[in-house]
Amino acid sequence: MATAEVENREWYVASYAPTGVPNSDHLKLRTVTLSLRAECIPDHHVAFQILYVSIDPYMRTQLSGLDDGLSLPQIPLGQVIRALGIGKVVRSKDAKFSEGEILMSRFCPVSEFGVLPSNLLQKINPDDEVALPDYLSSLGMPGITAWVGIEKIGNAKEGSNVYISAAAGGVGIIAGQLAKVKGCRVVGSVGSDHKVKLLKEEYGYDEAFNYRIETDYDAALAKYFPNGIDVYFDNVGGKMLEAVLNHVNHGARIALCGMISEYNKVWTEREGVRNLLNIVGKEVVMKGFMVGSYYNHFEEFIKEMEVHLKEGKIKSKYKIYNGIESFLESLTSLFTSSNVGKVILQVTP
Amino acid sequence: MATAEVENREWYVASYAPTGVPNSDHLKLRTVTLSLRAECIPDHHVAFQILYVSIDPYMRTQLSGLDDGLSLPQIPLGQVIRALGIGKVVRSKDAKFSEGEILMSRFCPVSEFGVLPSNLLQKINPDDEVALPDYLSSLGMPGITAWVGIEKIGNAKEGSNVYISAAAGGVGIIAGQLAKVKGCRVVGSVGSDHKVKLLKEEYGYDEAFNYRIETDYDAALAKYFPNGIDVYFDNVGGKMLEAVLNHVNHGARIALCGMISEYNKVWTEREGVRNLLNIVGKEVVMKGFMVGSYYNHFEEFIKEMEVHLKEGKIKSKYKIYNGIESFLESLTSLFTSSNVGKVILQVTP
Repeated sequence: MATAEVENREWYVASYAPTGVPNSDHLKLRTVTLSLRAECIPDHHVAFQILYVSIDPYMRTQLSGLDDGLSLPQIPLGQVIRALGIGKVVRSKDAKFSEGEILMSRFCPVSEFGVLPSNLLQKINPDDEVALPDYLSSLGMPGITAWVGIEKIGNAKEGSNVYISAAAGGVGIIAGQLAKVKGCRVVGSVGSDHKVKLLKEEYGYDEAFNYRIETDYDAALAKYFPNGIDVYFDNVGGKMLEAVLNHVNHGARIALCGMISEYNKVWTEREGVRNLLNIVGKEVVMKGFMVGSYYNHFEEFIKEMEVHLKEGKIKSKYKIYNGIESFLESLTSLFTSSNVGKVILQVTP
Repeated sequence: MATAEVENREWYVASYAPTGVPNSDHLKLRTVTLSLRAECIPDHHVAFQILYVSIDPYMRTQLSGLDDGLSLPQIPLGQVIRALGIGKVVRSKDAKFSEGEILMSRFCPVSEFGVLPSNLLQKINPDDEVALPDYLSSLGMPGITAWVGIEKIGNAKEGSNVYISAAAGGVGIIAGQLAKVKGCRVVGSVGSDHKVKLLKEEYGYDEAFNYRIETDYDAALAKYFPNGIDVYFDNVGGKMLEAVLNHVNHGARIALCGMISEYNKVWTEREGVRNLLNIVGKEVVMKGFMVGSYYNHFEEFIKEMEVHLKEGKIKSKYKIYNGIESFLESLTSLFTSSNVGKVILQVTP
């Protein structure tokens, strides 16, 4: 393992992208020299080599340079991008961490190496039954996000009619499986026929449709939800949310998890939802959530999710991009319907 | 009291008004002969003279001929309009009701006399401390509507920043006073300077503004809510709701009670709300409600409201229109900001 200086490649924000999909004008890779010598690591800090980084739609919202309605701060220009990541300790100045141990952090830089104070790190002890990327998917942030939306907010029950948009995404694919475990009827929308097939054949969805083909969302929902929608797990917002509000049942719950259809626009250009009056008449509850507010439920979640994983009732699915240089490609892939499951950047093989 | 036939004037739906404010092409008065002879009143039915009828914005939504997102049915063409009303028994074929007693019904026809099965009637026993119109305002539907929005959904607490739109309306004026009782800071928007003055001087609002003058709602809310909005009691929807979503605090509650700004439009013409992403980032709860679903809380509500009324902490306010012929005028007045407080039609002096 490197013990002296390393030439550390890292991604930083060169300029903001208020609209559109960020590109190589906005996000750039640079090489910085990082010392891993013991005397250069501050007390209670840990130096680590980065193994995996979680790539998620919310990251785009920190790159607009605008206050866009999510409470995540914009990343200052010139600064490295940070995300949920997994690393391996290479040098520790904290008694709780030893060389070679595996850790996870929500402040992991998108780079090859990182140095962080130990209170921002969490040790993980992977066993044979759980692959490392599972900590970034079914047992990680996407998993608890799916769980909060389906169980805590959606209150999905046996027989509930559950609709999930971006259903083959990192969160959606787990949300659908969780709803099936609860005995719900589950329908998902996705951006390719390949994903439609996969959701139905591999992930137990009762129905799925391609929103790029069935572009009349209202007609599609009428067809797939003859008995209306009881729970909507919304990952996309905009026109799809509007269509859903025409098909909700009385007392329906809508968990607003994210709005990927809207992230690449300034808010005044976003799709307006015109039929919120349905929320009154149908007494619908619409609740937005940021998963960070539910971390106090993490143990409860892990306990339940591990059982489902071990019983084979929930399967992880991820798309791995290889090498630090692939970060931009992995991020933009989120906006092109090209992936199935959780997108993960593997920095070090 | 009339004992034989009466020439009963009643309002019926002549044609639907999909958009705009209904007028005399849509709503017409006709005279029908109604027998009040005992042999003409069916068993378990009661004939009554109508004293007061409650005039409310929701009534407009039953006159469009369209499914407009509220669960109230359209009134069939040619049929009499029904609303919450108070009457006096003139002939009873039910042992529970006697001549001269006062009753209330949600199915009261907008007419001079009515005959209804006794199970649709509720006896009221007004005492000296409570005026009859109070049963249609602070102690009636507007009162419990305000109470549900402020307490059950809004969870307004000491120090909460509470915003109420259509604040001088039948519901708003009670909602604001209730929030003041709870120790909140309360701001209301209204459609005239006269109402601004009244809310601040008579009804204890901390601030109020005229949305027809301060037409940049975003700027107005920034000014009146330097510390953001914790509870929004929404009576109007549309552009105002959108502006509110730019000023909500984390965890804010939005009680969607009605959307008077949108009732006169078909849904595709309604104002789209473009910034629902704020609901995600701020973890806002938005809940629509129909007050009928909360009637099981009626006793709890009455108990609390009577205390406030007797202690003078909440004052009723109504605008009375006189005579059955004034119904159309009273209804259209709801859409012109011309009234303060609950609009009531006094059919019989």
